[in-house]
Amino acid sequence: MIYLTRKEHFNAAHKLYNPNWSKEKNIEVFGKCANANWHGHNYELIVTVKGEVNPETGFLIDAKKLGEIINKYVCEELDHKNLNLDVPFMKDVLASTENLAIAIWNQLTPHIPNGVKLHCVKLYETQRIYVEYFG
Amino acid sequence: MIYLTRKEHFNAAHKLYNPNWSKEKNIEVFGKCANANWHGHNYELIVTVKGEVNPETGFLIDAKKLGEIINKYVCEELDHKNLNLDVPFMKDVLASTENLAIAIWNQLTPHIPNGVKLHCVKLYETQRIYVEYFG
Amino acid sequence: MIYLTRKEHFNAAHKLYNPNWSKEKNIEVFGKCANANWHGHNYELIVTVKGEVNPETGFLIDAKKLGEIINKYVCEELDHKNLNLDVPFMKDVLASTENLAIAIWNQLTPHIPNGVKLHCVKLYETQRIYVEYFG
Amino acid sequence: MIYLTRKEHFNAAHKLYNPNWSKEKNIEVFGKCANANWHGHNYELIVTVKGEVNPETGFLIDAKKLGEIINKYVCEELDHKNLNLDVPFMKDVLASTENLAIAIWNQLTPHIPNGVKLHCVKLYETQRIYVEYFG
Amino acid sequence: MIYLTRKEHFNAAHKLYNPNWSKEKNIEVFGKCANANWHGHNYELIVTVKGEVNPETGFLIDAKKLGEIINKYVCEELDHKNLNLDVPFMKDVLASTENLAIAIWNQLTPHIPNGVKLHCVKLYETQRIYVEYFG
Amino acid sequence: MIYLTRKEHFNAAHKLYNPNWSKEKNIEVFGKCANANWHGHNYELIVTVKGEVNPETGFLIDAKKLGEIINKYVCEELDHKNLNLDVPFMKDVLASTENLAIAIWNQLTPHIPNGVKLHCVKLYETQRIYVEYFG
Repeated sequence: MIYLTRKEHFNAAHKLYNPNWSKEKNIEVFGKCANANWHGHNYELIVTVKGEVNPETGFLIDAKKLGEIINKYVCEELDHKNLNLDVPFMKDVLASTENLAIAIWNQLTPHIPNGVKLHCVKLYETQRIYVEYFG
Repeated sequence: MIYLTRKEHFNAAHKLYNPNWSKEKNIEVFGKCANANWHGHNYELIVTVKGEVNPETGFLIDAKKLGEIINKYVCEELDHKNLNLDVPFMKDVLASTENLAIAIWNQLTPHIPNGVKLHCVKLYETQRIYVEYFG
Repeated sequence: MIYLTRKEHFNAAHKLYNPNWSKEKNIEVFGKCANANWHGHNYELIVTVKGEVNPETGFLIDAKKLGEIINKYVCEELDHKNLNLDVPFMKDVLASTENLAIAIWNQLTPHIPNGVKLHCVKLYETQRIYVEYFG
Repeated sequence: MIYLTRKEHFNAAHKLYNPNWSKEKNIEVFGKCANANWHGHNYELIVTVKGEVNPETGFLIDAKKLGEIINKYVCEELDHKNLNLDVPFMKDVLASTENLAIAIWNQLTPHIPNGVKLHCVKLYETQRIYVEYFG
Repeated sequence: MIYLTRKEHFNAAHKLYNPNWSKEKNIEVFGKCANANWHGHNYELIVTVKGEVNPETGFLIDAKKLGEIINKYVCEELDHKNLNLDVPFMKDVLASTENLAIAIWNQLTPHIPNGVKLHCVKLYETQRIYVEYFG
Repeated sequence: MIYLTRKEHFNAAHKLYNPNWSKEKNIEVFGKCANANWHGHNYELIVTVKGEVNPETGFLIDAKKLGEIINKYVCEELDHKNLNLDVPFMKDVLASTENLAIAIWNQLTPHIPNGVKLHCVKLYETQRIYVEYFG
């Protein structure tokens, strides 16, 4: 079993806001992350897949192909977007890094080729905060 | 003459949009950076000052104090804000990294203590793009 | 199950010295790390917690709150200190990175909120050497 | 149980080329990585070992000694070499990052001291692509 | 005057070898960098341009366009290539980082748009060695 | 004219303390940096030299040789040392990063080979604070 990891990135706006709560409670819980006019991040996305090495290519999966899958099904949907307003797969979900990592996992799973398994979605919100989801 | 540099950061939303142009021209010039619903970045701000070493302290300026100045007059004004909507000193200016670096320079200049000179404002928009302004 | 990680840092002095050994044996085993007058490091501390996402907040735990816990119970006890002389929870322990990571785990455990579990303490001594402890 | 990690690096040339295939098929599968005149990388090698802390030293293993083992049995064999032509332990193997990580694991295993176990070989081919092997 | 910088990268093989010298003298001067079978690097290329901000766009130059110029005239010529064998603009020049930075400057100069000036080509050979050329 | 830069590092203990002042004034000015029992840092040292490229080697100066000079005259004097107690060339000087950068410049200057000039000593105290000295 071998693990291959590829990093991609996207830049997006979001706010943390629970629509079932008052504005005051949102500010109490989320602080400046609840700013009505949004803020944003350079998200760094790190995807790990696992499986056996193909003896004919020496590859688990061509890292270039893995990058294309991540970009097509995730980064193009998120880059230069507003996570709360523009992203169908984040609709009705709080735009936290935790929820975003889980949603990215669900976006990627159906597109990982046979013989390879998605192992981890790791998502940096800032250089000092990240989330990992293993399914 | 010695140069001291301190890095700080802030997260903000913005869009690139010239209000004198049509929507179509904005998209033609700015591409996905013109997304109406905003996007955002983790800005990394790197401020360099210069001057003589004080023989009693060994300091040009206490790096902690420099950090406090940058945070009070710049980062607190920008962090978790929308550069186009929430920031008085970016009003009526296109929210490009170039213009933001110049505006940060102008914010900082009056607050740099006597005997020290602001030398450079360096501003990363992403890990691969940055702007420098020397006044 | 989701994993959230937060990085903090502290700067400290230490030496590697076993008081049961002669000075010569200490130098033989620890080399320049046994320098009687101390040396020091910029320690990078990376704490991972795990648990379920709270559907009301989208958070496992507010990363800001996690940072406050790490700073209060660990970094304020270690930053700008001498690990051998100034830190009650390192008393009578060799000030190695391994022992420091374990001690940090023990410091943090009682302060992690209900519903969240401490998963890993990762501690960089230099940019090329780090230790991980999973309890 | 504690985990200690040390990073080392080496620079090498390689190409991806299956000698059982035509030139055309190699280019179809490996793209520019099949360039007949080679290309190369700054490989970053990250080795993790695990075991119990020795109470007399506070060490799992002296990180300096671990570095010497990695350098002697791996980096000196690979640094400034051609992975396809110059490296006995990569003979008859496709010079992919996956295969190289596995070969490095096999090189290191017999030289890890008693009481310590090799846990992971992590190998960066570029800053955005890496492989992990756990045996 | 404002400065805008964009980072790109390419991976290449090379060796340091003066054809006017004996093999022995090459090894004496260049050490393992003279390995006949090549070695290689992940080169990190950092290009800085300077000029006035265009008030209509807020840009010195669109960073995306600058990236396209660097990729078309430099990275596509160098990526996954052998600097000594495959690159017309490095013909008859020792493939040192110094000479490569100067050659990249000469490649870029004719393609920098009017109103913008090339300021610096900075080229990392490894994470600890880089060259800068200002024309 | 070309510029070549090499990064090295050392780990050291120090405190900021002016012996002409009371203990109280030292704490007032230097805060926790005045801790009597020392603290320490992983210093990152970045040395830039400049001059003409030698057409026979393609080098300004062999980066390996530059590294040897930096290590012999600077890093070996500072690594795993106490800047206030163990370093002859820091005697009677406040152990600030500013003064250390100047002292390193003075250490290096006599050992830079003919035809090459020392251009800059850049010294990181932490990842977010650094000093530059150009002579």
